[in-house]
Amino acid sequence: VDFDVKDQSLAARGKVRIEWAGAHMPVLAAIRDRFAKEKPLDGLRVAACLHVTTETANLMLALQAGGADVSLCASNPLSTQDDTAAALVEYGIPTFAIKGEDNDTYYKHIDCVLDRDPAITMDDGADLVSVLHKQRVEQMSRIVAGTEETTTGVIRLRQMAADNVLKFPIVAVNDTPTKHLFDNRYGTGQSTLDGITRATNILWAGQHVVIGGYGYGGRGLASRARGLGAQVIVTEVDPVKALEAVMEGFRVMPMIDAARIGDVFITVTGDKDILRREHFEVMKDGAIVANTGHFDVEINKDDLRALTTETREVRDHVVEYLLEDGRKVYLLADGRLVNLAAAEGHPAAVMDMSFADQALTVEWLAKQAGPLKPAVYDVPEDIDREVARLKLQTMGVAIDELTPEQVRYLGSWQEGT
Amino acid sequence: VDFDVKDQSLAARGKVRIEWAGAHMPVLAAIRDRFAKEKPLDGLRVAACLHVTTETANLMLALQAGGADVSLCASNPLSTQDDTAAALVEYGIPTFAIKGEDNDTYYKHIDCVLDRDPAITMDDGADLVSVLHKQRVEQMSRIVAGTEETTTGVIRLRQMAADNVLKFPIVAVNDTPTKHLFDNRYGTGQSTLDGITRATNILWAGQHVVIGGYGYGGRGLASRARGLGAQVIVTEVDPVKALEAVMEGFRVMPMIDAARIGDVFITVTGDKDILRREHFEVMKDGAIVANTGHFDVEINKDDLRALTTETREVRDHVVEYLLEDGRKVYLLADGRLVNLAAAEGHPAAVMDMSFADQALTVEWLAKQAGPLKPAVYDVPEDIDREVARLKLQTMGVAIDELTPEQVRYLGSWQEGT
Amino acid sequence: VDFDVKDQSLAARGKVRIEWAGAHMPVLAAIRDRFAKEKPLDGLRVAACLHVTTETANLMLALQAGGADVSLCASNPLSTQDDTAAALVEYGIPTFAIKGEDNDTYYKHIDCVLDRDPAITMDDGADLVSVLHKQRVEQMSRIVAGTEETTTGVIRLRQMAADNVLKFPIVAVNDTPTKHLFDNRYGTGQSTLDGITRATNILWAGQHVVIGGYGYGGRGLASRARGLGAQVIVTEVDPVKALEAVMEGFRVMPMIDAARIGDVFITVTGDKDILRREHFEVMKDGAIVANTGHFDVEINKDDLRALTTETREVRDHVVEYLLEDGRKVYLLADGRLVNLAAAEGHPAAVMDMSFADQALTVEWLAKQAGPLKPAVYDVPEDIDREVARLKLQTMGVAIDELTPEQVRYLGSWQEGT
Amino acid sequence: VDFDVKDQSLAARGKVRIEWAGAHMPVLAAIRDRFAKEKPLDGLRVAACLHVTTETANLMLALQAGGADVSLCASNPLSTQDDTAAALVEYGIPTFAIKGEDNDTYYKHIDCVLDRDPAITMDDGADLVSVLHKQRVEQMSRIVAGTEETTTGVIRLRQMAADNVLKFPIVAVNDTPTKHLFDNRYGTGQSTLDGITRATNILWAGQHVVIGGYGYGGRGLASRARGLGAQVIVTEVDPVKALEAVMEGFRVMPMIDAARIGDVFITVTGDKDILRREHFEVMKDGAIVANTGHFDVEINKDDLRALTTETREVRDHVVEYLLEDGRKVYLLADGRLVNLAAAEGHPAAVMDMSFADQALTVEWLAKQAGPLKPAVYDVPEDIDREVARLKLQTMGVAIDELTPEQVRYLGSWQEGT
Repeated sequence: VDFDVKDQSLAARGKVRIEWAGAHMPVLAAIRDRFAKEKPLDGLRVAACLHVTTETANLMLALQAGGADVSLCASNPLSTQDDTAAALVEYGIPTFAIKGEDNDTYYKHIDCVLDRDPAITMDDGADLVSVLHKQRVEQMSRIVAGTEETTTGVIRLRQMAADNVLKFPIVAVNDTPTKHLFDNRYGTGQSTLDGITRATNILWAGQHVVIGGYGYGGRGLASRARGLGAQVIVTEVDPVKALEAVMEGFRVMPMIDAARIGDVFITVTGDKDILRREHFEVMKDGAIVANTGHFDVEINKDDLRALTTETREVRDHVVEYLLEDGRKVYLLADGRLVNLAAAEGHPAAVMDMSFADQALTVEWLAKQAGPLKPAVYDVPEDIDREVARLKLQTMGVAIDELTPEQVRYLGSWQEGT
Repeated sequence: VDFDVKDQSLAARGKVRIEWAGAHMPVLAAIRDRFAKEKPLDGLRVAACLHVTTETANLMLALQAGGADVSLCASNPLSTQDDTAAALVEYGIPTFAIKGEDNDTYYKHIDCVLDRDPAITMDDGADLVSVLHKQRVEQMSRIVAGTEETTTGVIRLRQMAADNVLKFPIVAVNDTPTKHLFDNRYGTGQSTLDGITRATNILWAGQHVVIGGYGYGGRGLASRARGLGAQVIVTEVDPVKALEAVMEGFRVMPMIDAARIGDVFITVTGDKDILRREHFEVMKDGAIVANTGHFDVEINKDDLRALTTETREVRDHVVEYLLEDGRKVYLLADGRLVNLAAAEGHPAAVMDMSFADQALTVEWLAKQAGPLKPAVYDVPEDIDREVARLKLQTMGVAIDELTPEQVRYLGSWQEGT
Repeated sequence: VDFDVKDQSLAARGKVRIEWAGAHMPVLAAIRDRFAKEKPLDGLRVAACLHVTTETANLMLALQAGGADVSLCASNPLSTQDDTAAALVEYGIPTFAIKGEDNDTYYKHIDCVLDRDPAITMDDGADLVSVLHKQRVEQMSRIVAGTEETTTGVIRLRQMAADNVLKFPIVAVNDTPTKHLFDNRYGTGQSTLDGITRATNILWAGQHVVIGGYGYGGRGLASRARGLGAQVIVTEVDPVKALEAVMEGFRVMPMIDAARIGDVFITVTGDKDILRREHFEVMKDGAIVANTGHFDVEINKDDLRALTTETREVRDHVVEYLLEDGRKVYLLADGRLVNLAAAEGHPAAVMDMSFADQALTVEWLAKQAGPLKPAVYDVPEDIDREVARLKLQTMGVAIDELTPEQVRYLGSWQEGT
Repeated sequence: VDFDVKDQSLAARGKVRIEWAGAHMPVLAAIRDRFAKEKPLDGLRVAACLHVTTETANLMLALQAGGADVSLCASNPLSTQDDTAAALVEYGIPTFAIKGEDNDTYYKHIDCVLDRDPAITMDDGADLVSVLHKQRVEQMSRIVAGTEETTTGVIRLRQMAADNVLKFPIVAVNDTPTKHLFDNRYGTGQSTLDGITRATNILWAGQHVVIGGYGYGGRGLASRARGLGAQVIVTEVDPVKALEAVMEGFRVMPMIDAARIGDVFITVTGDKDILRREHFEVMKDGAIVANTGHFDVEINKDDLRALTTETREVRDHVVEYLLEDGRKVYLLADGRLVNLAAAEGHPAAVMDMSFADQALTVEWLAKQAGPLKPAVYDVPEDIDREVARLKLQTMGVAIDELTPEQVRYLGSWQEGT
């Protein structure tokens, strides 16, 4: 096996950890079992550029079980787990990823997987697609299709499609309900509070927790923070979302008012400057600020620094900013995704569904009779339902089926009057 | 004023009750105040076929304040509040509605409002539109547009549009978020439990409450029933919705299993036969069954009767079915909408938003420069946002606005990487 | 049967309603079944002075089944259900109670039951005990013991005991956990919100609900109001209780601050003047105020009236107070217990436990070998556990039992170190 | 300063961490500030045997600020934080504690603090008291009093008092409401789930979480687990507690039934063998079991091992037990307190109250005019109220005070009738 990993001796530990994750990814395991029998991906060359984690390892093994010839590189220089990478090599999967690799190595690793002449690409941020379109144009005619895991990647790709520069079809796995309804809501909600707890060991009960943004991430956070006894305050710019928050019993107010009240602030909006100079100026002494949105722009660190006379790390991932007026503000994880920085990101049980979507999407692509036109595609609704069905089954939950009479009734709704 | 109501002497009491409702409909009141100043509907003839309730009365008064020449008939022979009808007449609004009117009178009343040659129709179930298309074709060319409040009506109208028989444009008020997100979720959730409490005076704490269906209505119900201390069980046919229920911490199972456990059953699916013979056969002695879906088909009453030796009314809206094997099942409100039958339907605070959508939609229609093509239209997003904004404002809730930099950032998302 | 009731022809309806309540009082039913077999109260003369409701009727029937010679009069001139009284007469129980009876009749009825020379008294407010001590001293030597259902009665009796004037023993049923933990918390919580909903038809979601007092009643209210989507604010004078409210995620503040924010106010403290002039002066226009504490002193009505220019009833149990400055405040049920006035008081399922405590206490008194000294007694812990055990059993809930090893371990705790 | 710590160079880091904890212990900080002014403990020699953590360090500093001559040794050989110990030495407090010290050193360290001839002892498990009574009898006449932090210690001491062997008075800090209502409920609830999350990274949403025991710890756990989306099942032996759990909407059943359903099991009963052979035999493959009760006897590890063919550590604090029939059970932290083993124990905000109780109790003891008799004393109610009052104040929460009229009314309750 061709590979470039940190230390092959870490493989044993990696295997145990991959198994643990796998035990909490039963949908993917069921798909892997079926793949092993049916070999639907026989001989299909798949190049994946994903976070090299134990969850991703289980996806790779499922594709491999299905007969695919898979290779993997990292989608971020910092997120690689070196023991996982070593274990994957032992499992016979060409893997190119070293935690902390420099930029050149990062792109060299992308070349390594593309050199294997894949028919399918799997992206987490569109880097494979991007390199192909920029530097490896000759190879694109042999690409059947790709998949994309992230919001950011999907937005980029839709723009490329709109500009007519996208040269092969991509399925937007991110956008399917079994991905974003669960991952963004339950995954983010729990793991963000987990990250803040590990960083600070604060008691949530009775705290004023200010949540910037009431999208799916914000809803999950608000629900979980209340579940831990916090008094939740929501800020929003969209009146319909704001009203939903009010009707759920949360306090809603502008950030400038919330800034005076909050003990803990969490941003999750997708926009910049949610917390900025005017907010830092009025925060209570001891306020804790964290971000769980994708980029580290939601908390304006320049503004915070401009008010600061001194900083020091008081716990791992907790930096104290001593402001000119003597107040202290605590910034977690330097404003980066606190659930990944201070905890372990989304639990395997959530990635189970996202990666089951990925595996079934690759199978669906492999089964297409003829070529798809270059465009951004939704995950077929059947796959979404199948993933939900399998998840319920593996949790031991049965549900009803419509009777023929019920189906008929739904089809002739007007008769009900 | 031309009119046909039960008893004009009820007007005084009707006025007090209309005021009470109005006090809890501040968005509509704000619109009414603006309408009174701006007169945007000056001279516009509007014919409305709606439930003649105190909430509807407030809508009529708002349109009247805007300069419209409004008339009103009932959209259901049983839902008219006679004191409200009498009060509307005193307010100068031609009203044609008597609680318990027979079918002929019902249609005669529809003719009364259509005889006034309206430019705008407002429907709750599409009866005005239907009569116009069937019997008053000559008049349709003078109709500018209509609005529709219900799911059922919208479905009918979309079918008419699909079959190219719809002759004038209709706005589907039902489908806009500020209508169905709030009305269906918070309105149904609270008022259904209210209806069952009034009918039975049961303690909710510790009860097994089985909710058939996890759409918006079911979500509201599940959340509120848990909020009262019940153990909630959800049944579903859609695996994605079922999984959401599981992730919210509810038990999910097929109805045949839930039927053995439930103390109280509530159906809210839009489909028929949710509770049927096989379920009645295994229910516990003393089980209470109720429906809050639109039609009384969700609980199969024929199946229940077929198992029954004797019935008697044990409280208002509660009929005991003594089954052959000695068990008793209690059917509420004869399987009709229990929140309307045993309580007062949706609170005014919820109708506030739905009817604000209606009022602003009429204004929008009045402002159109040229004619719209015959089709079913969505409520413009601006109106939805405006209603949410006003609702927040009247609740004293302020929210944030995007800064110019934030707007710019959102428009150039790819720079965030 | 000797009796004095309103209208004997109401008995049939009374019986149906007594049965409905009985179906939701399975613990009492189980006790009644056992009593019918064992006749533990054979020939015991019991005089009861209780609210003449369908729940009380089931208690009377249980005692009768146990062989007791029971008679009943009302503990409040207004709370009698005339159909229930008529039905009890048909069941052979001497009953003396007419809804709306005047003061003379009320006391004449008390004499009627005491004339039957009881060995056991059952009180709800200590009126039987009081009449005996004041006017029927000669009879007291033949009284074995009494029971008392209310906090108020128990406080009176303890004072009598402290002053050495209490002449026979009394069991304080009110104070036992299966009574007050459930009745006060879950019963009051649900039924109070129910009463306010019936009176006003407000939407709870998003409302600011101010709860005066965080005892068991206040806890129940706070939990249920949050469960319906309200934003709950608690006021307290006890810092430990206030802190518990904070840790549960509720806002806590002085009433003078809450008064400016609240949409709905509910008092449940046991003290007077919780809402008074200074609070009415700053309330929002449209505020709703209600009380669910035992006496109508918690809302200072004189203070409210002093600020008012005009009142009118806008719905049943809702009186609008138009204040001098134009604001309106809505007082529910004239400041009396809103759950009894506007709804039906505690559900039967809650009274099941309180009255099971009563029935078993009477049995325990009947079994005493020798006379108890005059004093106020707690319900024996065995009875409390038995009631909880039966309640669980009738709900179909099984629980664990300690193994012999576990019992041993608990008895020698120090070994665990 | 006399001392015995691991490495004095760790002091700098210890100081930063002590400060962080101190920032979340504002009640203790307020007491410390007052102590610094009033010097109420001037010259008082205090010997403390407590977990040497950053929270304890803040207690020591408060006593020192009050003028006390404090010394500290560890109450457990494993719980010492060496950097904290080093920092305390720099702060001038004789400290004798090394993480992992052997038994001899442990007792030698106890001798070191007792050699300083204290007037007050502070215990966490009664070791100081025990050594004094056994080996240093001559010194006891100079002990004014002691305090005890734990349930276990208090039970021991009460037995000593009952046997008339206790030679000086002890205050049972553990038993005061501001200690156990908050520490046991909110502290245990959050930190236990935190420990399990760190150990396993499971998603809580949708999991069946079985909680053995519904005391204060169990209530906190049940509430927090539901708050994270879990389906909670409670097991109990006490029917009253079981019924409360049912009324809160939790499922209650015997452990043998819960054992078949649970995904995660948490014991918190104070008894042994909560999970034993019969339960392990029926658990689902992959079940996770953890304990948060004080001793590691709640999960019977011998029984688990007897069914096991192989074990391996799959993550830190997670050991996989491969059973003979192929199922796997995961035991966390070897059945020891999972919140201390896998997370950081109670947050500082909770210890703030417990240690404020300690500090004020020492002050109260110092102020006693004459000697107290040897016995176990409750914390004076005034101290409890003061701690709650200060906690509210430092959280910025104001509460009401009774008016003179309200006080009068409460004192003459009978007038309310």
